[in-house]
Amino acid sequence: MLIPTLREMPSDAQVISHALMLRAGYVRQISAGIYAYLPLANRVIEKLKTIMHEEFAKIDAVEMLAPALLTADLWRESGRYETYGDDLYKLKNRDQSDFILGPTHEETLTVLVRDAVKSYKQLPLNLYQIQPKYRDEKRPRNGLLRTREFIMKDGYSFHADYASLDVTYEDYRKAYEAIFKRAGLDFKGIIGDGGAMGGKDSQEFMAITPDRTALDHWLVLDKSIASLEEIPEDTVQAIREELLSWMTAGEDTVVYSDGSGYAANLEMASSEFKTVTKVAVQEEVERVATPDCKTIDEVSVFLDVPVEQTIKTLLFMADHEPLAVLLVGNDQVNTIKLKNYLGVDFLEPASEEAAREIMGAGFGSLGPVGLPDTVRLLADRRVEAIANAVTGANTDGFHLTGVNPGRDFKADYADIREVREGEMSPDGKGTLKFARGIEIGHIFKLGTRYSESMGATVLDENGRAVPIVMGSYGIGVSRILSAVIEQHARLFVNKTPKGDYRYSWGINFPSELAPYDIHLITVNVKDEQANSLTTKIERDLQEEGYQVLTDDRNERAGSKFSDSDLIGLPIRVTVGKKAAEGIVEVKIKATGDTIEVNAENLSETLEILGKGSSE
Amino acid sequence: MLIPTLREMPSDAQVISHALMLRAGYVRQISAGIYAYLPLANRVIEKLKTIMHEEFAKIDAVEMLAPALLTADLWRESGRYETYGDDLYKLKNRDQSDFILGPTHEETLTVLVRDAVKSYKQLPLNLYQIQPKYRDEKRPRNGLLRTREFIMKDGYSFHADYASLDVTYEDYRKAYEAIFKRAGLDFKGIIGDGGAMGGKDSQEFMAITPDRTALDHWLVLDKSIASLEEIPEDTVQAIREELLSWMTAGEDTVVYSDGSGYAANLEMASSEFKTVTKVAVQEEVERVATPDCKTIDEVSVFLDVPVEQTIKTLLFMADHEPLAVLLVGNDQVNTIKLKNYLGVDFLEPASEEAAREIMGAGFGSLGPVGLPDTVRLLADRRVEAIANAVTGANTDGFHLTGVNPGRDFKADYADIREVREGEMSPDGKGTLKFARGIEIGHIFKLGTRYSESMGATVLDENGRAVPIVMGSYGIGVSRILSAVIEQHARLFVNKTPKGDYRYSWGINFPSELAPYDIHLITVNVKDEQANSLTTKIERDLQEEGYQVLTDDRNERAGSKFSDSDLIGLPIRVTVGKKAAEGIVEVKIKATGDTIEVNAENLSETLEILGKGSSE
Repeated sequence: MLIPTLREMPSDAQVISHALMLRAGYVRQISAGIYAYLPLANRVIEKLKTIMHEEFAKIDAVEMLAPALLTADLWRESGRYETYGDDLYKLKNRDQSDFILGPTHEETLTVLVRDAVKSYKQLPLNLYQIQPKYRDEKRPRNGLLRTREFIMKDGYSFHADYASLDVTYEDYRKAYEAIFKRAGLDFKGIIGDGGAMGGKDSQEFMAITPDRTALDHWLVLDKSIASLEEIPEDTVQAIREELLSWMTAGEDTVVYSDGSGYAANLEMASSEFKTVTKVAVQEEVERVATPDCKTIDEVSVFLDVPVEQTIKTLLFMADHEPLAVLLVGNDQVNTIKLKNYLGVDFLEPASEEAAREIMGAGFGSLGPVGLPDTVRLLADRRVEAIANAVTGANTDGFHLTGVNPGRDFKADYADIREVREGEMSPDGKGTLKFARGIEIGHIFKLGTRYSESMGATVLDENGRAVPIVMGSYGIGVSRILSAVIEQHARLFVNKTPKGDYRYSWGINFPSELAPYDIHLITVNVKDEQANSLTTKIERDLQEEGYQVLTDDRNERAGSKFSDSDLIGLPIRVTVGKKAAEGIVEVKIKATGDTIEVNAENLSETLEILGKGSSE
Repeated sequence: MLIPTLREMPSDAQVISHALMLRAGYVRQISAGIYAYLPLANRVIEKLKTIMHEEFAKIDAVEMLAPALLTADLWRESGRYETYGDDLYKLKNRDQSDFILGPTHEETLTVLVRDAVKSYKQLPLNLYQIQPKYRDEKRPRNGLLRTREFIMKDGYSFHADYASLDVTYEDYRKAYEAIFKRAGLDFKGIIGDGGAMGGKDSQEFMAITPDRTALDHWLVLDKSIASLEEIPEDTVQAIREELLSWMTAGEDTVVYSDGSGYAANLEMASSEFKTVTKVAVQEEVERVATPDCKTIDEVSVFLDVPVEQTIKTLLFMADHEPLAVLLVGNDQVNTIKLKNYLGVDFLEPASEEAAREIMGAGFGSLGPVGLPDTVRLLADRRVEAIANAVTGANTDGFHLTGVNPGRDFKADYADIREVREGEMSPDGKGTLKFARGIEIGHIFKLGTRYSESMGATVLDENGRAVPIVMGSYGIGVSRILSAVIEQHARLFVNKTPKGDYRYSWGINFPSELAPYDIHLITVNVKDEQANSLTTKIERDLQEEGYQVLTDDRNERAGSKFSDSDLIGLPIRVTVGKKAAEGIVEVKIKATGDTIEVNAENLSETLEILGKGSSE
């Protein structure tokens, strides 16, 4: 069996799941961002596939398999061959025809369905596949979290109308929740950005990465340790530092309410907004010198005006047209919300040079008053309520005071700011909390984005050709392996016979995804009685349906136990010194509890333990 | 469900399996040689995977999954990046590094094992994977038989010595036989050419393609037809022509003995060879004019000498050196045997121009007598026994008579001729028969070809570094879908109420690979009683573990039955006019037999039929 465990933590890993996957012999990198799934990882993926097959059968989704090597013509039809960007692997075949390696399969499935389906009666169709996808990531990193070849479950549904899409979309939402729950993941379904796929409604599923300061989450104490309190403070401090030495694997920020079900990607999140009636007397606009004031905070201090009464002005190029964006004080612009509001393809901050040319001043002194008509003006909706605001004067080193929206400038207003932790939830229930998450699934209402560009229509009940309405549904299969290890990595703390406290990393795999159920270890392979007892136990357990990984290598006991902690199967059964008496030790990974049982009673014990752990 | 059956045979298919896979809605081509496996095909492949998983578990082969996108550096290490040829897909990533799409994974697995294994104690290892492979075929054709993206099971074993390899190789041989048998394939394990993979011993597994003149094989007569004899001769003739209008899908020629287990690819086949003692009196060499004699047959007639007394001389360039090859009369050279005997990388026929320059004559007048030392001379071993032979004189329009090997020229002798059907088996038992076959599996003893070039060694019992001994084992998974349909395509013959005989193509899927067990058809979906009976039957059968494909489309009965014949599930259950009485019709695909049963007794009937068919 190829399980090449490592003695030390690999030095090139920054997140704990990456380090443990390498160290426990689950995967090996073949080239940057391209991995081989060794037998242990392959078993986890197969188990996840089985869960998916079962849950998708319940919603009448049917499996198929499209090729990964796709003719560029398919992607030219949808227009994505040109717009997808540098992440698209492109190649030529021996005839010099253009091909790509599929990062996703909207086009392929649209063409298959377009050619096979003529009437609304043949719809809905609900198809999915599980296969490697390709994305030439600029900076592959963090193990299986950002790779160039990765395994996806991608599903596509085809409908005669939106009502039918809504039903399937809701089916998938539930199926995804069931799958992630069975996989033992701590996750949230949140409002996501569908823009990238050309879609409308979308929901992201995020595996929440654990807080690195929550010792309760991370530590598994050996049963010889009564509680965390007995561990010396310097050891606890070392443990805290060990935990903080790993980067969080969550690349996304999840915003959720502590008082309602509201949850969204930071990219899409809103907070409560109330229209405020202005009561202040409107002052006259005055131009004041603000030498050396580069930031909102400096201007606020210099003019002795609250930050909330200042307006920050940013200049963007939106589809190559200048756009001035206004925000209250130190609010940050949310470029995803901005882009979705504008409906543009390209949005980027203008250079300071462009700002001088268009607005007449550098970044610190931009403002909305007296702009030429060529500059579009868009303000966050909170800006409208500010009276007698301070803004840049569009002259370096000068600001305006007494600026009043409506009177002194005209703008469109929209929700384009990034929310902050602690603000009220947009539904008015609870305050917003932030967490870090790994995107493990995403469902989209694509609508007719692909069917219209690729001419996929059906005849409706009245014999009219209408574009097929589509949904798309993805799960990052290989990513889930990282996410589950990120959530189930543990520091196992032991007390040595001398009374020292030692800690070491390992995995505590949830039972439904664990590569095997039981790690069966013979301590001394030269002990004939132990060997024959091991063989008997292995056979008996397998007959009862358990998946058993047997370690009968001629190695030191210590290295076998340490490998077992790393690999992280739910149950360890040790055939040791009491083999002659028929006694083995059972250790429950999740709790650190160990008990001695007669091998005869092993299966009964496991059954009771299994029931206990599922309660 | 996406099963896009076609009304007509697709015009672009030349072999029946290709035509039926398209027509029955199993696959669709996305671009030349690149297919999407639609739900039916995907189910067949999943069933084949399950069979493989079960049989490989028995021989302790462990599944893993390597990437398909491989850094070229891996292949540079083995030397294959340069030598593999135009079939290798090459591409660059965004950093302009070279990559390939893996056509096979010897290098990848060798590197993984090299880096993980240090001692002979960690061996043997036996790993396999099932994944798409890539080969940029010059002329993709015949459906899934020759494609650019195809699904392979590839396995690799790693050993400390050859004895251990022999054991695993034998395990695989048996596992392959078990897999192909369970898959319902008519196959032969034959001696194969291991040269291409750099190997030693190798065995190929060939699915035998049916003889297109064997009506018994192809026809399934409706039960209203007593026997083939009652069908009018012109219809039978039309059937014969229909069968012959399809090309054989077997690209390889299988040579086997009718009196022993001997079987080999024509590329490797031998026939019996007995050393004959020459008794004839040796004549003198004479030069004779043979005007207008271009072929051996013409020379034989002109000089009135038996063909068996003539020697044919061919000129090759072997690794850029001239090589004259001698054969008896009209024997054909077997270039694979020739290449393997010579151990050269490049072998190609010389141009006639080169022949004139090197030998002094054109192709019709070459001979072995008086050649310059620069030309190597290799003769088939049968040449040695000819006395007083006729050969070319190395002058256009002239031959020599009375040529005696040994006396008049010196050559090396080896078995380099192509065998002919009807010759004696090389083991002396039986005569050789030819059949056409599709290669579905191949096992190789690779030896140290890869471990030596890539530095994969282990320390042996004496602490010496020795190269790892390897085996490699492939199954063409997607090919098997073609092979099984090729073998199980049938012409279903029916008698119309008017007494006409009609025939149409369909599949008769073997039960273990059929996408579903049962095709359940409601004839009239507007009949409420039929609908509710169908729903009940579907649920009951599924509960008993049957996989049921239900056709409750609002279509004509004829088109439902015709789709059912095409798709080819082993059992068809029809809920028709007698639904109100609870009576359904059961049809056994393989025999054409139909019976009416009460739905209550359906599962019992199926059980009895199942037992009958497995006997």
